[in-house]
Amino acid sequence: MFQAKIKAETLKKMIDIVSPLVNEVKLNVSPKGISLRAVDPAHVAMVDLEIKASAFEEYKAEDMELGIDLDKLGSVMKLAGAGDTVQLEFDEMSNRLIVKIGNLVRKIGLIDTTGMTEPKVPNLNLPAKITVKASDLYQGVKASEAVSDHIALLANRDFFELFAEGDTDTVNLRLPKDLLIDLDAPEKCRSLFSIDYFSSMIKPVKGDQPLTIYLGNDNPVKLEFEFADKNARATYLLAPRIESE
Amino acid sequence: MFQAKIKAETLKKMIDIVSPLVNEVKLNVSPKGISLRAVDPAHVAMVDLEIKASAFEEYKAEDMELGIDLDKLGSVMKLAGAGDTVQLEFDEMSNRLIVKIGNLVRKIGLIDTTGMTEPKVPNLNLPAKITVKASDLYQGVKASEAVSDHIALLANRDFFELFAEGDTDTVNLRLPKDLLIDLDAPEKCRSLFSIDYFSSMIKPVKGDQPLTIYLGNDNPVKLEFEFADKNARATYLLAPRIESE
Amino acid sequence: MFQAKIKAETLKKMIDIVSPLVNEVKLNVSPKGISLRAVDPAHVAMVDLEIKASAFEEYKAEDMELGIDLDKLGSVMKLAGAGDTVQLEFDEMSNRLIVKIGNLVRKIGLIDTTGMTEPKVPNLNLPAKITVKASDLYQGVKASEAVSDHIALLANRDFFELFAEGDTDTVNLRLPKDLLIDLDAPEKCRSLFSIDYFSSMIKPVKGDQPLTIYLGNDNPVKLEFEFADKNARATYLLAPRIESE
Repeated sequence: MFQAKIKAETLKKMIDIVSPLVNEVKLNVSPKGISLRAVDPAHVAMVDLEIKASAFEEYKAEDMELGIDLDKLGSVMKLAGAGDTVQLEFDEMSNRLIVKIGNLVRKIGLIDTTGMTEPKVPNLNLPAKITVKASDLYQGVKASEAVSDHIALLANRDFFELFAEGDTDTVNLRLPKDLLIDLDAPEKCRSLFSIDYFSSMIKPVKGDQPLTIYLGNDNPVKLEFEFADKNARATYLLAPRIESE
Repeated sequence: MFQAKIKAETLKKMIDIVSPLVNEVKLNVSPKGISLRAVDPAHVAMVDLEIKASAFEEYKAEDMELGIDLDKLGSVMKLAGAGDTVQLEFDEMSNRLIVKIGNLVRKIGLIDTTGMTEPKVPNLNLPAKITVKASDLYQGVKASEAVSDHIALLANRDFFELFAEGDTDTVNLRLPKDLLIDLDAPEKCRSLFSIDYFSSMIKPVKGDQPLTIYLGNDNPVKLEFEFADKNARATYLLAPRIESE
Repeated sequence: MFQAKIKAETLKKMIDIVSPLVNEVKLNVSPKGISLRAVDPAHVAMVDLEIKASAFEEYKAEDMELGIDLDKLGSVMKLAGAGDTVQLEFDEMSNRLIVKIGNLVRKIGLIDTTGMTEPKVPNLNLPAKITVKASDLYQGVKASEAVSDHIALLANRDFFELFAEGDTDTVNLRLPKDLLIDLDAPEKCRSLFSIDYFSSMIKPVKGDQPLTIYLGNDNPVKLEFEFADKNARATYLLAPRIESE
């Protein structure tokens, strides 16, 4: 049994967060809420997402798995207005997810979750923790896209920095400690990443919302942020690129 | 002789209504106003449109036919602002329509109307009449496009409904009597239509403007709405699709 | 040595003015300001641009030439907001232009200016001078694009006119003296031009900003306008098309 009511914007945010990595996901439904974990087809990035029961306006569920095509869910969610509430219901008879927005009813055929294994979160050594307003990162990432396809992230006691280098051009964005919400880097850390992935991972976090970055040396980066009034949380992991120099 | 002044928005609306079906039309000009009737090349849909002399700010005309390329008229009308008035004049010498917007003058070569016959409106048995706000339909039609290329329209004493069915997914939008402006369906009616056509036919009607639907059983649907302060009227006819079941 | 601060909008305007003609330019830097002169690859149009030192918020420079790729400068300028100030600095060591917007630093590799010769401004006989609000021209040029690929400009004592003629259709826009900011045409002048070029030349001048047109008979047209509070000036020259009639 699964019956829930949720703000359209929370469901849209979930789709925005997950769909850059995968189109088909296995939702783990439990009385405590909904969670999912998925890796992209290239095995470069992982997303781990949790929406607590408290994020819903109404929530009744027992343990189950729902295989969802996010393109389908996204296409109907586009028709929901900013303040709309969406009703979700699992129809066991037809094995479909019923999505209701006002008088509109879309029934989405569920996909088979048999082959969808749960990826494991690796053990990571990420000594630096940086909390930054999303909008402060955005400009640096966009500028970097013009000169390279990879970006270095650096942190030390005094600042956090993005750096990208092309054949003739470079981009860097240095955010000193006083421009960050929080900086805790006991040692100097530096890792290199694909800009495409990194860019799509910061995109769901808008304006001056905080984004926490966990950084190591030639290690994956972990990005974490909350949404739905802190009743939901997303974590991305992105594998490093090997420096060719 | 044909000399007229009309609000740009009325002429733009005429183009928006007719151009999804045909690019070249024969305008029937008379002292009472302008009318046209046209079918699309696939003979699936017909439009019948009338702009009364009272819709014009100035109007002087004798009986004549004008063959108009709507792409040409549309391209110059794009340059008219929201509150602009457009002057229209038939130049017999050069066989052109003179369109004046402020100081701008576009002369449009007319097309030969010799081969353009007037399509006949078929006799139809459409017992159900539904009047609905255009915006209430829009969401259901957009959602239906994602699951199928045809849509069923249903009406009975209690409600009006759109229904679309794909391989795994369905969409339906049920509007009960109290959400409709008017519902008069003495018997249950149901017909199936191409979503593409139906979607382009409701697009010219904006927001909460009323749209009247005449529906039968496996019969064409008739859509009717007014514009230009009720001084103009458009009617679409759309042939049904044969149900494959 | 070159170190300067300038409003982002002034630098963006420079790019908007020059980039329709060329992507790579040689900036002539001197203590008095920056200037450039360039012709498009087809040798149909020339741009001559000057930004005085007074247009800058800070300005220190000695005589030098900077070879700039406008696509690169444009890509980073897109990230500057409306009220942003941009810092420019020539880095002699690395032969790069350093562009700073807030905490963002883009270093742009300069291009070799050795082969880039200074085009000469030809001697022209342009007896008519017309000053017009840019927005009044815009509609006529857009309408002309729909009927032809060339446009005639005409001026006499009483009016200024655009005229375009296609196979069946014509467009003209006549602006009488009282709708112009200024008209000084001692004799009738008429020349024909490519609409594409003319259209891209009036595009950087927005709304009711004045644009001065110098016109002759079968001669190039000269377009002139100021920006950055009259501390900068752009001049376009456009070669005439030969009338085929």
